[in-house]
Amino acid sequence: MFLGKVVGTVVSTQKDPKLRGGKLLVVQHVTMDLEPARGFAVAMDSVGAGQGELVICASGSSARMTEVTEGLPVDTVILGIVDSLEIEGKIVFRKEEEG
Amino acid sequence: MFLGKVVGTVVSTQKDPKLRGGKLLVVQHVTMDLEPARGFAVAMDSVGAGQGELVICASGSSARMTEVTEGLPVDTVILGIVDSLEIEGKIVFRKEEEG
Amino acid sequence: MFLGKVVGTVVSTQKDPKLRGGKLLVVQHVTMDLEPARGFAVAMDSVGAGQGELVICASGSSARMTEVTEGLPVDTVILGIVDSLEIEGKIVFRKEEEG
Amino acid sequence: MFLGKVVGTVVSTQKDPKLRGGKLLVVQHVTMDLEPARGFAVAMDSVGAGQGELVICASGSSARMTEVTEGLPVDTVILGIVDSLEIEGKIVFRKEEEG
Amino acid sequence: MFLGKVVGTVVSTQKDPKLRGGKLLVVQHVTMDLEPARGFAVAMDSVGAGQGELVICASGSSARMTEVTEGLPVDTVILGIVDSLEIEGKIVFRKEEEG
Repeated sequence: MFLGKVVGTVVSTQKDPKLRGGKLLVVQHVTMDLEPARGFAVAMDSVGAGQGELVICASGSSARMTEVTEGLPVDTVILGIVDSLEIEGKIVFRKEEEG
Repeated sequence: MFLGKVVGTVVSTQKDPKLRGGKLLVVQHVTMDLEPARGFAVAMDSVGAGQGELVICASGSSARMTEVTEGLPVDTVILGIVDSLEIEGKIVFRKEEEG
Repeated sequence: MFLGKVVGTVVSTQKDPKLRGGKLLVVQHVTMDLEPARGFAVAMDSVGAGQGELVICASGSSARMTEVTEGLPVDTVILGIVDSLEIEGKIVFRKEEEG
Repeated sequence: MFLGKVVGTVVSTQKDPKLRGGKLLVVQHVTMDLEPARGFAVAMDSVGAGQGELVICASGSSARMTEVTEGLPVDTVILGIVDSLEIEGKIVFRKEEEG
Repeated sequence: MFLGKVVGTVVSTQKDPKLRGGKLLVVQHVTMDLEPARGFAVAMDSVGAGQGELVICASGSSARMTEVTEGLPVDTVILGIVDSLEIEGKIVFRKEEEG
C-alpha cells in the first residue's frame, strides 16, 4: 500500500455505470517525511476521507477487495485514514483531534 | 486510476480476435496541473471518449471490469470523461460545454 | 497496453513445460514518436509478429486472456500488430505494404 | 518479491473493516548492498517482523495468498524475515542471533 | 517477462508456511546488452537456475501459474533459463555448454 494526501476531487458524469455513486479523490503521493512525492493517483474512497487527510491506498486487484469497490473497475482505493505514523521510533505524524 | 489526455488512435487489423470492434486510443499521462507527463498508454475506450478529452483510466485486471472489456486481453481502459477537476479547493479544469 | 518494436528472440529449452511451443520475443519500448524508450520486455507472441514490427502488448493478468496464453505463466503478450498510428491528427506511422 | 527494512508503523482506526487486527508496517526499499533505496511501502505483516529487520515482501494479488491476508484489500505483505543474504558468493547480511 | 541474472540467494526460516521448500534467488535486472540494470527482484525458482545464469522471469499473478508456484504468495518466478538471445539479427548471448 502507499501513503498519500487527499488533494482534490474528480467529477465525471460520462463514466462506467458501475462507478455511479462512488467518490473519486485525487491522492498525492508522499515521502516518509510526508513531503509531496512525484506522482498521484485517482482513488475511490471507501472510508470517508476528506481533503488534506493522510490516507493509506491499495492498488491493483486488491483495490477491489473492499465492500465499496467489489467488482468495480477501480485500481486504487483509499482504505484507511492515518491516525499516526511512527518512523524509526519517532512519531512523524499525528492526526489532529477534531471538535 | 490515472488521468490522461486522449491524443491519438491505434489501428490494427492483425490482432487478437477478442479485440475486434473495440477502439484503441492513445492516452498521454498528465500531471495534476494537466501538463503532459512522461509516458503514455494504449487504452480501450468504454465511454466514447474523443480526441483531446481528459479521461480517467484504470490499469491491470481492473481494466477488465467494465461491460465493454470483460474477458478481453486489455490492461488499460478509459472509464470516465472528466467534467471537472478540483485541486486544493480550486477548479483547475472544467470541460467545455458542447453545442 | 504499451507500444513496442520487436527487436529480438529469446531461446530457452530449460523452461516451464507450459511455455513449450510458445514464441518469446524481445519488445523494445517506444515513445509516441516511435523512438526507442527505456526498457524492454520479453513477450509471448499471439499474432505472428515479426522482427521490426510495431506491436501492441498487454501486461499483467490481462496477458493471459488470449487463446494462446490462457493459463500460461506469462505476464506480457503481443496482441496486435500496428497498421497505423495517428497522434494529434497526424499519421505518425503506417505499416508498409508487403508483396 | 522485494527486500526491505522495517522502519515504522502506521496506525489507523478509520479503515476498512477487514483490516482490523492486522499490523501495518512501513517497509523501506533497499538495494542489494542493503542501502536505503528510493521508495517505501506500507505492508501487512504475516510473520511477526520487528523494527529494523530485513524482510521479503510480495506485491499485488500475490500479497493476498498468505493465511493472514486472504481476501483482504492489501497489496503488499511481509512474508519472510531474512536470515542471510548471499550475493556473488559472499554473505552480505546475516541476522544477529537473539538472546 | 523480464531478463535477469541470478546473483544470489536469500535464506529465511521465519516465513510463510507455503514458502517452505521453495528456493528464493536474487535476480539482477539486465539491459538488452546484458549490462546490469537498476533494480533486482527476489524470485522463486521453478527451473533449477544456478548462480550467474541468464533467466526469464514473470511477475505478478502470472508468477503463480507454474506448477511450483501455484497458490503461493510469490510475485516473481524464474520460468526459463536463456540458451541464446538474438537482438537485431545478432546473437548477443549464448549459454556456454556444460561438461
